[in-house]
Amino acid sequence: MTTETLTVRDLGVRARAAARVLRSLPTARKVAALHAIARELRAREAGILAANARDVAAAQAAGLPAHMVDRLRLDAGSLAAIADDVEAVAGLPDPVGEQTEEKLLPSGIRVSRRRVPLGVLGVIYESRPNVTVDVAALALMSGNAVLLRGGKETVNSNAALEEAIRAALAAEGLPESAVQVIRDPARERMLELLRLDDLVDAIIPRGGAGLHRYCVENATVPVIVGGIGVVHIYLDESFTRDPADVARAADLIRNAKVQKPSACNALDTLLIHEGALPVLPVIAHDLATHGVSLRADLPALAALEAAGVEAKPAAESDYGTEFLALTASIRTVAGLEEALDFIAAHGNHTDVILTRDPAQAERFVQDVDSAAVMVNASPRFNDGGQLGLGAEVAISTQKLHARGPMGLSELTTTKWVVVGDGHVRA
Amino acid sequence: MTTETLTVRDLGVRARAAARVLRSLPTARKVAALHAIARELRAREAGILAANARDVAAAQAAGLPAHMVDRLRLDAGSLAAIADDVEAVAGLPDPVGEQTEEKLLPSGIRVSRRRVPLGVLGVIYESRPNVTVDVAALALMSGNAVLLRGGKETVNSNAALEEAIRAALAAEGLPESAVQVIRDPARERMLELLRLDDLVDAIIPRGGAGLHRYCVENATVPVIVGGIGVVHIYLDESFTRDPADVARAADLIRNAKVQKPSACNALDTLLIHEGALPVLPVIAHDLATHGVSLRADLPALAALEAAGVEAKPAAESDYGTEFLALTASIRTVAGLEEALDFIAAHGNHTDVILTRDPAQAERFVQDVDSAAVMVNASPRFNDGGQLGLGAEVAISTQKLHARGPMGLSELTTTKWVVVGDGHVRA
Repeated sequence: MTTETLTVRDLGVRARAAARVLRSLPTARKVAALHAIARELRAREAGILAANARDVAAAQAAGLPAHMVDRLRLDAGSLAAIADDVEAVAGLPDPVGEQTEEKLLPSGIRVSRRRVPLGVLGVIYESRPNVTVDVAALALMSGNAVLLRGGKETVNSNAALEEAIRAALAAEGLPESAVQVIRDPARERMLELLRLDDLVDAIIPRGGAGLHRYCVENATVPVIVGGIGVVHIYLDESFTRDPADVARAADLIRNAKVQKPSACNALDTLLIHEGALPVLPVIAHDLATHGVSLRADLPALAALEAAGVEAKPAAESDYGTEFLALTASIRTVAGLEEALDFIAAHGNHTDVILTRDPAQAERFVQDVDSAAVMVNASPRFNDGGQLGLGAEVAISTQKLHARGPMGLSELTTTKWVVVGDGHVRA
Repeated sequence: MTTETLTVRDLGVRARAAARVLRSLPTARKVAALHAIARELRAREAGILAANARDVAAAQAAGLPAHMVDRLRLDAGSLAAIADDVEAVAGLPDPVGEQTEEKLLPSGIRVSRRRVPLGVLGVIYESRPNVTVDVAALALMSGNAVLLRGGKETVNSNAALEEAIRAALAAEGLPESAVQVIRDPARERMLELLRLDDLVDAIIPRGGAGLHRYCVENATVPVIVGGIGVVHIYLDESFTRDPADVARAADLIRNAKVQKPSACNALDTLLIHEGALPVLPVIAHDLATHGVSLRADLPALAALEAAGVEAKPAAESDYGTEFLALTASIRTVAGLEEALDFIAAHGNHTDVILTRDPAQAERFVQDVDSAAVMVNASPRFNDGGQLGLGAEVAISTQKLHARGPMGLSELTTTKWVVVGDGHVRA
């Protein structure tokens, strides 16, 4: 079956029909489908890599920067890893069907809530073809149908991956329309998806802030936004008294900034207690050695210059900014309360305190209103795998429905179940 | 303090600051604030009723229909009931601060999730001034600040209610900006609220389908929609074999349709098993006696005409329609599967099966994808109070975040809390 001549609405109608089948599937059928997909991906390696090579060649011909071409390239190893990931999702606990305890209410009715799939998801992403398979696996395991809209750079790869997935679904006797790729890369098709609110239950964008903003501005389907993530670490003076703690702080701050600078959970701004300024050169020297360019306020700059560590003066725009690169800003604060005020103005994603004072730690955890709040741990732990979800479909920075990494449970909702014996409302 | 000269953005900034105070308030302070509000409402009875009388006079002068004037009218009794409701909210369990068990993960970090307020709510509603107080009480008890945008018909009542609430907050040493009414009734102000996504965490419309659609079309703040609710009851043949069951079915269907026809959980369409048609006249006669106008398909019409019960032929548009009035449609089906297909096409709010067959009941509960699914109980139970939530701020028909009646818990979200000892990601 081809989906090339179908409108986005047609795909939505088919997805809705598929969702009705998926929502009642026993876990074993979903697990079998995921294993079938993994097998099909391995069996079709040559065809998938050939399709991907066409995308890579087109991207190179179009003059895409090398790092973007790298993001869309598949090889035998990365394809095998994608198939392994599908099998890993098949091993996760199925949230569908979980039921709260049935309560007998004074009216005589018995009430409970049952966990059910969201229904139809729309996922919009950019150039990485592994997302096509990852998202399909997570959607299927949580009983959802999914409409996928990838980047125009990966149209051939996504078509080959979709065909593999759908062949596996058909072989397992499941509706192929459970997973559909919107193949036409025109922006109008994305807009149609964003406005399909009678058929699609949630839109999940995966990409940069611009994509998220476009979805928020244009969607009538509810959107789960992420995208921008400003990350702070507040280094309290209490964490700098013991030289072993200074070494820990330097390790942690390096991990936060350097391990994967392009990640949304990488450090952006270090807030430093003025009493901790004497140890700043140790930390900053370590960062500079790893290629980090620093932008510091005047007190921090003075401490760094005195120790011969290079840094530039920070502009106000260096705060509340997600760098996604080997750049970090530093701000000196008089204490915890000033740090909290600063984070209240600029934070929303992941914020860390390094302290040896439990009362400070609790005040920080209570006051900071971010998706993840951490004490003496690297912000890089704000990730579905690291937080024990097994896998993540996206990281939400909004507050409705899901906050932080979204695993299988976040792709579900609940319904009320009421049982009576002819009961009427008084 | 007056809010008349502030822009909607100004109000949002103040609400955000208030939210930071509210999110860390102990339960006892919130309870005290609600009791202070109830006292203030009682103490200001004369002023509030005088303001309300001005609204009523203006509405009458403007020629508003009597039933709409009734909706906005307050008297000593209804104002006392509003104050009592505030105290009832103060007696509900506080969801804020609930924490999941802390898990020690293989990396050595300790991870938990803590329940926290959403932050700033925007609630848009129409002419009933009691909503101003109800919503303020629920928002405060769940630790949220709220921006209220009521109807232009109640501008004087809402101003007087807001003043009472803010006086109580000030007396309790709490930020008055926790509750702010947008006093300018111009639609542009509502649009500004809908697009305040850097300051407002969720929009909750309370009103008709038109208001909900306007919010969905225009908001960049996430919206929790409800509004349209089509309600079905499927009467299976198995529930008509025993005359006592026929009487129960008639009672329940009357309760579903007649108790409050304007409610979203009132019956719209009766799906009747063809084997149950012989008892339809009993049920329909009962409905007709209570003033219900019936629109039936041909088999049902034949059964009713043979028994001398009046009904009109149904048009296709009588299905999937929320009547909000003493009208109901009737459709004959060959059995459960046809009923399920019909509900899959038309349902989303509350759907009921009347059956004596447990396997049918479970199939219905599993397959029907509505906010509330019921077995042998009136759809009128789909209500926060009836389902044991204590109070409700709205009924959601969407799937993200909250589904069905929204109580205090649905006005909260979670944050991840991670505790390490200098842990870094490997």
